Amino acid sequence: MSTSQAENITMSAGGRYSLATAGARDVIDGAAPLVVRAIGEVPAAAVKAGVFTMSDMGCADGGTSLGMVRAAVGAVRERFGGAVAVVYTDQLRNDFNALVHIVQDVGGDGVHTLFSATSFYDAILPPGSLHLGFSATAMHWLSGKPCDLAAHVHAVGAAGDEREKFAAQARADWQKILLHRAEELAPGGQLVLVVFCIDGRGRYLGNTGGVNMFAQFNALWRRFVDEGAVTEEEYRAMTLPQFYRTVEEFRAPLEGEGAAAQAGLELLEMETRIVPCPFAADFKAHGDAGKFAEAYIPTLRTWSESVFYGALSTARAEGERRAIVDDFYRAYGDAVRSHPAGHAMDYVHAYMRMRKTR
Amino acid sequence: MSTSQAENITMSAGGRYSLATAGARDVIDGAAPLVVRAIGEVPAAAVKAGVFTMSDMGCADGGTSLGMVRAAVGAVRERFGGAVAVVYTDQLRNDFNALVHIVQDVGGDGVHTLFSATSFYDAILPPGSLHLGFSATAMHWLSGKPCDLAAHVHAVGAAGDEREKFAAQARADWQKILLHRAEELAPGGQLVLVVFCIDGRGRYLGNTGGVNMFAQFNALWRRFVDEGAVTEEEYRAMTLPQFYRTVEEFRAPLEGEGAAAQAGLELLEMETRIVPCPFAADFKAHGDAGKFAEAYIPTLRTWSESVFYGALSTARAEGERRAIVDDFYRAYGDAVRSHPAGHAMDYVHAYMRMRKTR
Repeated sequence: MSTSQAENITMSAGGRYSLATAGARDVIDGAAPLVVRAIGEVPAAAVKAGVFTMSDMGCADGGTSLGMVRAAVGAVRERFGGAVAVVYTDQLRNDFNALVHIVQDVGGDGVHTLFSATSFYDAILPPGSLHLGFSATAMHWLSGKPCDLAAHVHAVGAAGDEREKFAAQARADWQKILLHRAEELAPGGQLVLVVFCIDGRGRYLGNTGGVNMFAQFNALWRRFVDEGAVTEEEYRAMTLPQFYRTVEEFRAPLEGEGAAAQAGLELLEMETRIVPCPFAADFKAHGDAGKFAEAYIPTLRTWSESVFYGALSTARAEGERRAIVDDFYRAYGDAVRSHPAGHAMDYVHAYMRMRKTR
Repeated sequence: MSTSQAENITMSAGGRYSLATAGARDVIDGAAPLVVRAIGEVPAAAVKAGVFTMSDMGCADGGTSLGMVRAAVGAVRERFGGAVAVVYTDQLRNDFNALVHIVQDVGGDGVHTLFSATSFYDAILPPGSLHLGFSATAMHWLSGKPCDLAAHVHAVGAAGDEREKFAAQARADWQKILLHRAEELAPGGQLVLVVFCIDGRGRYLGNTGGVNMFAQFNALWRRFVDEGAVTEEEYRAMTLPQFYRTVEEFRAPLEGEGAAAQAGLELLEMETRIVPCPFAADFKAHGDAGKFAEAYIPTLRTWSESVFYGALSTARAEGERRAIVDDFYRAYGDAVRSHPAGHAMDYVHAYMRMRKTR
């Protein structure tokens, strides 16, 4: 992939990410027990100089993890008593101005809020300085896309050689993420990672029995080509640099001769969970298809819009590119309005907890 | 003062601060030898776990301190060899999106860049975790203004009770800044603080023998009242929450029973320096008054514009407020164009180095 394209992928700015992603907050709230368990197992000897350092990697605007961070800070204060450093991290293109405002109340007596613009594909913190590394709904983003997909927008719809290229990239990226964390963690430090997955029954984000969200994305984008709104080249460029790993793929580098196991990371627990789409749940209660579409489409936009926009030729004027993207989500909204049943962006995650053994 | 007004004071956003402030960069480059000296005196035993932590407090967009930070990182790597954490700090309203981009190349192998949105009037870092605290051209900003000035825009033109209120605020604020730093510093850690001052000959920023910049600000702002462009109330509200301390005022809390001395801070060196206005120097070479005004006014705007804007009544439309501010700097530019001789924003700073003795 072109690096520049990866760098242009962002979550919605201006705090809109957390407003539109009540589901993502539910996902993180569900991880709070793992976080508290992790804090309970970090050995007191690991917390040098009385400062406990935790990170929230790929935090976007910080709004979805506020509850988890407060729970973690409370648990740390109760167990260790000393100061806590909370390091919010995301890539360089994140909206840090929104982030610092949204999380400003996390700081205060004994709690020091810091920010990093270093990607989790690099070393964020100094070696041995991290006690609890957390990340939710972020590490499905690959460091780049190995190829454009000829017939789909997402690797879940890829086949053959293209699929294998994505799987290989995902393997390399997962190992890279884990090795950087192994380096950052203090001995006895822990990781709680919540990552999109394909579960044991083949389910994944937006594909839990009803309409397949990515198939819908793809069908509409294909239709835009057929109607002449976008070119074949733009169709292919719309390839999400994401991969949903299986439980086996998550586990591989953490077992036996795996690189992460060799670096001292031990997998303590892993389970997959489905967190239901809050907008589809609301629709079941109110039954208003228009209202459903209006609430549902923004949550899809938060994470996909910058990729659709980036796929459009720069030969087009900026306004034209924006208009095509608007048309696309309008078309998705129309599909939801006319046949609302089955639309749902249920979240399917692997919840993992690991520790650094030495 | 109203807290909300203090919170609205910002340096220019979008990276314009460092572009317009070549002089501020010269000021910081001049501090590099003190920084290198400080690093040379931090005891190896203070650098626990091999990580050396430095901060740049009040960094704005980070552009003016790039050279100093690189010199510091080099000195740390040479002396200690381990990892370096560089913590850029500024208040919540700073433009962090510009900052993270401007300093992105500071990070890399063994150098970890972090950001804090905590003011230097609060605890930025955990106790005992800082090895070198740096700040330049920032700590003249008070935590608030104790009163509006009836007949000037800056405390340098205040008298009587008003002046005493500002001096008292500056005393309390300086002590607060130092006590927070004493808490943050590891034993043997050092501070290099470069702060606007009034030197032994009564000189201060923009008042080094030629036109007094603040008198010029005040005269023009007064003229705006006389011409009916701004109200008497708006005139008074334009009171910069700044104070230029004398060497004696800087020294007071660091001596004898002073609170900072009691907290373990020792003043190692202090001198005042004048760094000449680069735009006035250019003018001497090229002699073009128009060109001078065009280069000079933006550097005044970077730090004063948000205060002038904030002084204007919110009953005015935003566009009207912007237009008045534009008119004001245009009037200043006209004054420079018609009588360029003597205009200069020479910087007058106290350069201080301190250490935490225990």
